[in-house]
Amino acid sequence: MAEKRYLLTPGPTPVPPEVLAELAKPIIHHRERDFREIYQRCLSRLQDVYRTRNDVLLFTTSGTGAFESAVANLTSPGDRQLVLSAGNFGERWAGMAKAFGADLVHARLEWGETPEPEDLRSALADAGDVKVVYLTHSETSTGVVCDVQALTAVAKEAGAFVVVDAVSSLGAVPLESDLWGVDVVVSGSQKALMCPPGLGFASVSGAALEAAAGAGATRYVMDWERTRKGQAKLDSPFTPAVSLVRALDVALGLLLNEGLEAAFDRHARLGRACREGAKAMGLELFSPDEERSAVVTAIRAPDGVDSTEIVKELRDRFGITIANGQGSLKGKIFRIGHIGWFDIFDITTALAAVELVLADAGAEIERGIAVTRALEAWAEHTPV
Amino acid sequence: MAEKRYLLTPGPTPVPPEVLAELAKPIIHHRERDFREIYQRCLSRLQDVYRTRNDVLLFTTSGTGAFESAVANLTSPGDRQLVLSAGNFGERWAGMAKAFGADLVHARLEWGETPEPEDLRSALADAGDVKVVYLTHSETSTGVVCDVQALTAVAKEAGAFVVVDAVSSLGAVPLESDLWGVDVVVSGSQKALMCPPGLGFASVSGAALEAAAGAGATRYVMDWERTRKGQAKLDSPFTPAVSLVRALDVALGLLLNEGLEAAFDRHARLGRACREGAKAMGLELFSPDEERSAVVTAIRAPDGVDSTEIVKELRDRFGITIANGQGSLKGKIFRIGHIGWFDIFDITTALAAVELVLADAGAEIERGIAVTRALEAWAEHTPV
Repeated sequence: MAEKRYLLTPGPTPVPPEVLAELAKPIIHHRERDFREIYQRCLSRLQDVYRTRNDVLLFTTSGTGAFESAVANLTSPGDRQLVLSAGNFGERWAGMAKAFGADLVHARLEWGETPEPEDLRSALADAGDVKVVYLTHSETSTGVVCDVQALTAVAKEAGAFVVVDAVSSLGAVPLESDLWGVDVVVSGSQKALMCPPGLGFASVSGAALEAAAGAGATRYVMDWERTRKGQAKLDSPFTPAVSLVRALDVALGLLLNEGLEAAFDRHARLGRACREGAKAMGLELFSPDEERSAVVTAIRAPDGVDSTEIVKELRDRFGITIANGQGSLKGKIFRIGHIGWFDIFDITTALAAVELVLADAGAEIERGIAVTRALEAWAEHTPV
Repeated sequence: MAEKRYLLTPGPTPVPPEVLAELAKPIIHHRERDFREIYQRCLSRLQDVYRTRNDVLLFTTSGTGAFESAVANLTSPGDRQLVLSAGNFGERWAGMAKAFGADLVHARLEWGETPEPEDLRSALADAGDVKVVYLTHSETSTGVVCDVQALTAVAKEAGAFVVVDAVSSLGAVPLESDLWGVDVVVSGSQKALMCPPGLGFASVSGAALEAAAGAGATRYVMDWERTRKGQAKLDSPFTPAVSLVRALDVALGLLLNEGLEAAFDRHARLGRACREGAKAMGLELFSPDEERSAVVTAIRAPDGVDSTEIVKELRDRFGITIANGQGSLKGKIFRIGHIGWFDIFDITTALAAVELVLADAGAEIERGIAVTRALEAWAEHTPV
């Protein structure tokens, strides 16, 4: 029999069959009305998912490319900018802001900590006049989801633009771009939006667009104003990945049809089920044991077991792909993603297989309760 | 009946069913061995199609993004660079080099002219010490394919790096990256490579890589050295468009299976058939009537007919998409693409429909010979 495969990483994530089928449709021309209709609906659905009336600019690029659009459009060399980081993707903001010549203030927490408003307030006070603050909504490397609403309020008080990495959070946990006053939200197609990788997005407030007009960093394909002008006429300035755009349109339709609140509730329950199952077999969580941890569950490898081996065994024996730790957490934690096209049986599959692999590795774990405990936790609904 | 569609533009181009089917396969993780195997084969096939032993760097971006990788990695503000342009895509090189702060010398020919070695020689002599020369192999806006081999020789004599836009030429007309000594060749997935848009490439010589290390322009996701290092370990630095990469792998397999020489011959015959058919009905060619014109045939609208109307009628009555002129040629010429997954009946379809639309518009054209003449021309083989 051909091996079955299970993709349980925090991105790229599994894509529903309706979306895969859309990818296989014949190519259409990007300046043709067939495409314009899809493009328009897709851009409008993105606004719905973002909960914004700002333009959501769509780029053919990776999630990191969407990051870059923000840095390249908001930076003039020498600008004072602040990154509040507690993991790999926060580090990426810092590396990029530096590469673009910002006078970077890097407020660096330990990987796995949750950035709190007080951390930001004191970093801003120390730094003085900060023009841009970069935040990471869901730090995929650690499983931490921070309180972007509270952090944004602190940054706005200090008069800074707020740029949020929502690559793994958009569509999975609540994010109110306009209500919370976030200037720029960047995201990508390959996480909770249930699409293949290849499209990146940035919602941009009017004030941020204005600031971009005066920003000196060089950029061309990801220039915001050029992209905005093109989108206003439904005329992408450069050939977009038409197959991915039509797939995204279908995927966003599925998400909005489920309803954002229902999707948030489902993700919260998936996260809870995963945590409860892991704890039931005696494992220690690395990501916080709280409702917001709805994107990825990071779990410490038990004493004497290398998480690299857990990941490898799952892949080799069962065709299951989960994620190792990144950076210095490699070998120490493993990560189970549950964003996008996931239901409870993806979680029970992951838990059952982890249980077996750990037992065979001689780890002291409790057998036979993880799956049942996960199913029980899943049954509890989150009050909206 | 559902309307049949015919995509006959010079890009994006039709994609074979085997490639479309590949797009619909479940997502795999980009750091997993299933993907690494595909990635490795794809990168190696790209080298075969490029006819280079240099690394071909693969980016998730449009063709213009591949342009930008070249400019961003080779430019320090103030560098003297030269663009030899004769159409829309040459203009793009110029706009981009300027955006990145180059001290630009723009040798601008009329749109539709063929850049000749003498044009480049005199422009270089006038300009003095030029560090980089940007060329356009196939100028898609006009249908002109220039002699990149001869132009490269002139630029190398002057000690400049040579960067070639081969977005619409790669795989359609001969291009010997290494034999001709081209430093950087940029291309994209959506033309003769028979894939959807979304992937851009740059082959980079050792000398160009070295120069990039000292170039001051900012870049991040399209940084050559970061990409090269990742590819050397089959570990893309950022999440690539995995679906497009596996589609490209299959498409390149189809192309290499046909054989590059056979593909070049086929494209030359398609171009010849298109020109002969157009001339037979009394139309005047805009693109040169020569063997190299194998990418796109540009045809002048007959007196009294607006080419915008021809394009619109073909679309509205028959579901056929061809291209209008760009810039000041809009309304004056129309363009039939024949790159990639094209055979002679795509050409006869285009000619038959154009004939009907023009006759109905009252143009004085010859009826009933274009298709036959095209079939005759197609039958003549190009001596290799």
